[in-house]
Amino acid sequence: MSFKTAIIRKAHFNAAHRLNNPNWDKAKNKAVFGKCNNDNFHGHNYVLEVKVVGEVDPETGYVMDMKELKDIIKNEVTDKYDHKNLNLDVDDFKNLNPTAENIARVIYENISRQITSSNDLNIRLYETERNIVEYPA
Amino acid sequence: MSFKTAIIRKAHFNAAHRLNNPNWDKAKNKAVFGKCNNDNFHGHNYVLEVKVVGEVDPETGYVMDMKELKDIIKNEVTDKYDHKNLNLDVDDFKNLNPTAENIARVIYENISRQITSSNDLNIRLYETERNIVEYPA
Amino acid sequence: MSFKTAIIRKAHFNAAHRLNNPNWDKAKNKAVFGKCNNDNFHGHNYVLEVKVVGEVDPETGYVMDMKELKDIIKNEVTDKYDHKNLNLDVDDFKNLNPTAENIARVIYENISRQITSSNDLNIRLYETERNIVEYPA
Amino acid sequence: MSFKTAIIRKAHFNAAHRLNNPNWDKAKNKAVFGKCNNDNFHGHNYVLEVKVVGEVDPETGYVMDMKELKDIIKNEVTDKYDHKNLNLDVDDFKNLNPTAENIARVIYENISRQITSSNDLNIRLYETERNIVEYPA
Amino acid sequence: MSFKTAIIRKAHFNAAHRLNNPNWDKAKNKAVFGKCNNDNFHGHNYVLEVKVVGEVDPETGYVMDMKELKDIIKNEVTDKYDHKNLNLDVDDFKNLNPTAENIARVIYENISRQITSSNDLNIRLYETERNIVEYPA
Amino acid sequence: MSFKTAIIRKAHFNAAHRLNNPNWDKAKNKAVFGKCNNDNFHGHNYVLEVKVVGEVDPETGYVMDMKELKDIIKNEVTDKYDHKNLNLDVDDFKNLNPTAENIARVIYENISRQITSSNDLNIRLYETERNIVEYPA
Repeated sequence: MSFKTAIIRKAHFNAAHRLNNPNWDKAKNKAVFGKCNNDNFHGHNYVLEVKVVGEVDPETGYVMDMKELKDIIKNEVTDKYDHKNLNLDVDDFKNLNPTAENIARVIYENISRQITSSNDLNIRLYETERNIVEYPA
Repeated sequence: MSFKTAIIRKAHFNAAHRLNNPNWDKAKNKAVFGKCNNDNFHGHNYVLEVKVVGEVDPETGYVMDMKELKDIIKNEVTDKYDHKNLNLDVDDFKNLNPTAENIARVIYENISRQITSSNDLNIRLYETERNIVEYPA
Repeated sequence: MSFKTAIIRKAHFNAAHRLNNPNWDKAKNKAVFGKCNNDNFHGHNYVLEVKVVGEVDPETGYVMDMKELKDIIKNEVTDKYDHKNLNLDVDDFKNLNPTAENIARVIYENISRQITSSNDLNIRLYETERNIVEYPA
Repeated sequence: MSFKTAIIRKAHFNAAHRLNNPNWDKAKNKAVFGKCNNDNFHGHNYVLEVKVVGEVDPETGYVMDMKELKDIIKNEVTDKYDHKNLNLDVDDFKNLNPTAENIARVIYENISRQITSSNDLNIRLYETERNIVEYPA
Repeated sequence: MSFKTAIIRKAHFNAAHRLNNPNWDKAKNKAVFGKCNNDNFHGHNYVLEVKVVGEVDPETGYVMDMKELKDIIKNEVTDKYDHKNLNLDVDDFKNLNPTAENIARVIYENISRQITSSNDLNIRLYETERNIVEYPA
Repeated sequence: MSFKTAIIRKAHFNAAHRLNNPNWDKAKNKAVFGKCNNDNFHGHNYVLEVKVVGEVDPETGYVMDMKELKDIIKNEVTDKYDHKNLNLDVDDFKNLNPTAENIARVIYENISRQITSSNDLNIRLYETERNIVEYPA
């Protein structure tokens, strides 16, 4: 019997953002996104959980080395997003509205390129303590 | 490729309850439910997580608007359960033992009527920090 | 130089209560205590922190044995309050409104009788994650 | 014997900010404030604890009504700071660097005007889970 | 329609351990396991979540009695692992490297023998707040 | 008016330890320290809060730079204690029983040498979520 095991690594980044659809006028953006549309941005302490699912290597007892996963998260996410303005400073969101749903999907895509292809990946992102997204669901 | 995304919204309610099966005598209720059967009730700060799974709307970047989900939870759960006695004040539990399992299922049924039918719903309820249920599992 | 050291022990109890002043009529109680006045009670997962301040015994390296403090809290608080209705089941609140302030003071008085008189005592009580009291302040 | 009691109310606001001293040149600001000086701002989920110390009213069992304190915090802090850019949108920080220390002191001053003068006030502000300030200390 | 329900019970144990593969020399162990290979051990406050998935009994409103699950966890995990050295004091790890992945799988195997076979079991183990594993995934 | 401000920085270290008084025989050590006396050690994820109290510098808006405090904690505490056996690997506890009380006082002494003498220092150490110490109290 060979059940798969998941490892989950937590990380944090603090960033400014605003929600806005450039194809809509100001009134519609305000109506849809409310205070999240504030012109001068607002911000969050994002909490990120990266889950990798795979077989445990019998030699190490690891799915993968947590230190390696920590480094991938640092290179692909925190070095790029932490203490930044997601809309203005980060290429990933130059043409993509930085909702929690979109941020989670972009992080998934960026990290999945660095993970052994036989392993599965899942992203959980806390925008606040009360607003959370997961991708894929 | 179209992976689904989940959004999760957290809420709280503080309620009294007791566990009791009216078809059993006092001794059997005490034997099965122990101190949770206390005649004069006890209470909890329930923590609720409502998860909605669906496709991300490319116009908004949302599965659904968190504010809309927040309002549904307020109408269907917290306005009805918060600072109430679940056994005596809430119709949902007039004939149903308010175990965490049953509360979670009732919340699922009440919220699912308000959610777009193409989206999936999942309820996680913390009765205490150490006792948690999920429905459906 | 002899600085004092504090030890803090955390505990939990789940109880029903209602706020009510028997010297007031129903309307005034409702006006002052709002939904906390609900006739059939509501409830909380109370979180308790008991702090004892004293000198460290050089033989043990302890202010006092945490296991002893844990037992005092069990005898004086959790065995009496957990899974109970504070208004109906607990003598301490037969004639005292069980606000968080009053519960903290009563716990202080009950525990202080069991603590070496040269040590100081402080109680922190979380009624919810957002409502906290301390006694003495 | 009349010991004082403290009540603590927790609140949250999500805001963008940057640290900058306008009397310094760009290089010195970068040297002192590092990534907190990012031109386009970054942001935080600030967690606020407001502590009020006073005597317990024997009629209510309250130091003050938590709902009243909640409303004061809403009017004086969260309505003004939440989903805002502290540097650009908030008058309090037009001429004051929005470090956690300065934000805490400004919140103290704004709330203290609304609190009965015989009560003491203390502010605890979490900029992140790991960076916290208190005023007065 | 009969959806399954999950119950989750949380527990804690504090243990020492070190990671080491006896088939490797000292240099390779140090290279692979880094500071987790420290000769004299280090330690953790492990947090354990045991999830049991099954049908809700209509008589009790329970998947299974949380008190029964609590006792199983005490017998199978905390009495054996708490305040112990996993490598030296616990038979389960005499010949198995106590990585979080391996600990989770062993706990799964030990608890699954005590659970009704129609119920499913899942283990989540927090080695630290930031390093988490799940089995099966 | 010049009120002082406190800043608090949180850190973590994972270590093995045992409690033992070498002047006592085995039976007395077992009687006093119970399972904390386990011959082969056990371990904890220690959480540390370092509080520095001082005046806010009007130029920076800081009591002191959090990055500087973070580096002091790294040099004086986490580099020395993390993933170590406190009894065997750390000089500070060669002749001192590593109770939480003693660890907190040693951390106080080590950090206080690195802090401006006009600032006050306070240490809060969580051995577990439920056992906490503070020095000085």
